[in-house]
Amino acid sequence: MRLRVGIVGATGAVGEELLAVMEQRGFPVGELVPTASERSVGRAVRFAGREWPVLPLEGARLDECDLVFLSAGASISRALAPKLLAGRPRLYDNTSAFRLDPKVALVVPEVNGHRLTPAIRHAAVANCTAILLVLALAPLERAFGLDRVVVSTYQAVSGGGRRALERLKDELRRELAGEVLPAGASPPFAFNCIPSIGEIDPGDDVAARTTGEEKKVGDEVRRILERPDLSIVATCVRVPVLRAHSESVLVELRDREARLDDVIAALRDAAGIELRDDLARGVLPMPRLAAGGDLVQVGRIRPADRPGCFTFFLAGDQLRKGAALTAVQLAELQFGTG
Amino acid sequence: MRLRVGIVGATGAVGEELLAVMEQRGFPVGELVPTASERSVGRAVRFAGREWPVLPLEGARLDECDLVFLSAGASISRALAPKLLAGRPRLYDNTSAFRLDPKVALVVPEVNGHRLTPAIRHAAVANCTAILLVLALAPLERAFGLDRVVVSTYQAVSGGGRRALERLKDELRRELAGEVLPAGASPPFAFNCIPSIGEIDPGDDVAARTTGEEKKVGDEVRRILERPDLSIVATCVRVPVLRAHSESVLVELRDREARLDDVIAALRDAAGIELRDDLARGVLPMPRLAAGGDLVQVGRIRPADRPGCFTFFLAGDQLRKGAALTAVQLAELQFGTG
Repeated sequence: MRLRVGIVGATGAVGEELLAVMEQRGFPVGELVPTASERSVGRAVRFAGREWPVLPLEGARLDECDLVFLSAGASISRALAPKLLAGRPRLYDNTSAFRLDPKVALVVPEVNGHRLTPAIRHAAVANCTAILLVLALAPLERAFGLDRVVVSTYQAVSGGGRRALERLKDELRRELAGEVLPAGASPPFAFNCIPSIGEIDPGDDVAARTTGEEKKVGDEVRRILERPDLSIVATCVRVPVLRAHSESVLVELRDREARLDDVIAALRDAAGIELRDDLARGVLPMPRLAAGGDLVQVGRIRPADRPGCFTFFLAGDQLRKGAALTAVQLAELQFGTG
Repeated sequence: MRLRVGIVGATGAVGEELLAVMEQRGFPVGELVPTASERSVGRAVRFAGREWPVLPLEGARLDECDLVFLSAGASISRALAPKLLAGRPRLYDNTSAFRLDPKVALVVPEVNGHRLTPAIRHAAVANCTAILLVLALAPLERAFGLDRVVVSTYQAVSGGGRRALERLKDELRRELAGEVLPAGASPPFAFNCIPSIGEIDPGDDVAARTTGEEKKVGDEVRRILERPDLSIVATCVRVPVLRAHSESVLVELRDREARLDDVIAALRDAAGIELRDDLARGVLPMPRLAAGGDLVQVGRIRPADRPGCFTFFLAGDQLRKGAALTAVQLAELQFGTG
């Protein structure tokens, strides 16, 4: 079986990672149909030892593909998905467009892979921060039940796309050379922590005090865990890291008798997780170590202040496990190639 | 009144900041006695338009000063403080040596300045992360009572001293030039988040799972607020920021009826705090903006998941308000020069 695989947004940060992940995992691509915005047309992407020309969306015949990865922004997914579903392909959608749509499956393979039934032709890949978090929460939910999650994130600049990443590097080069950065519309990434990621609702009400990223983390984790009642308090912060998000997490477990050893064991045995939990020996989750890897590193596990309360720290590659790898795993589940 | 002012650790990051703060505030220094380790002897520090030679500890006659700032590490404070107290000076101690000693006052002027009575000759300046946090917690404790604090920090590399700061810059220069960093004993600061700050107890018990910095934050905030029962869960993380620490904070208030407007008002009216709390307009606490300033920026204030629960973000210059400025303010309180 060789598949015809379309990619929308093939030249973006996630698109590039999709190609790398498919190649590394030997995903059976027979024909690649990379598409991107007009700006990138004329370029080519490299995959499986050859160059594939980047096509414009119009005329790429994505509707004849076996599967299409959507990774070019929510508005493009919203416009394109209904048309493609009228044709042949299954869709793996890395954008936020349909993640809360009850007709679309929101699946993290290690957590709720059973929800990706053969009939489902449109699967959404969750927000990167939500995926990394839910991988650590799911084994705790299964073993002890979750009452509440408090999370503060440390999110890499590549989460803002390739141009954000170039801006960070440019800012750092200038400042290290002694230049003063010109005042810009956005605050500098360099040497900064920015507690604002994603869209902001205008207005003065409480909803306008929560960022789009913070809402996604709460909504998507609740949906994936099928726990609409789960209490999640998220604060999402951009930090000057190139790649891999980190998260500082407090959980309150329903099982107030849960012991530290059992919490550690539940996380150690969970799929998709690498335990790095030896503070004294410096074995810690860190974004530099997590970057490029497939696993979410978890460590700093310790009891907090009340029975059933524990804290931990995690780090994971938000472009791989947080996006491209999860999308390819979903395709593998449905095409039997995993 | 012109005072004879000694500094132990005059060439370190905090020592340098002490000189800058005293100069900016017109602290009435008649004679400066800067001391440092053997390595720095022979150098001079600049203060009030002239050069003052850096002296070795032995022979500097610190015991004849009116006041001495101690900022050269806990072991030096432990050895030196008893000797100096047998002489003339009042001590303002930026190290952790005596912070939990009931005979030593642990004072943040805006919070518990009344504890710095004239009889007290040895005052400790709290840990930088604790000072920034307690400035925001104190008005909430006064207005609503605190039940619990959950904090995750984003700590600047200058908190690890001048050499740490130089290492970060060197790592960034190398990586931006395409070099691969050599493997070192410590993880790189560059493009990393390191969830380990301060001393680590050896062993496998629960205490060994908490870092020295995390213990300080809990112990010192409890002591300053005179709330030994207060529940504080701290996770302390080093991020690649040059200067100013940030903190993501969840508070659970005793007053479950507390309204968002009242919480905002309490923080707005508090001494030492600058409200930057307009998410939609990008008015946020950020370490780049807080660096060099005297105030702790507070923003992202919003209700969390339960009655009486709120979250906020803060940023403050840990070398100024978190160390040098607070030390000079304590001296001003006692010498009537504020």
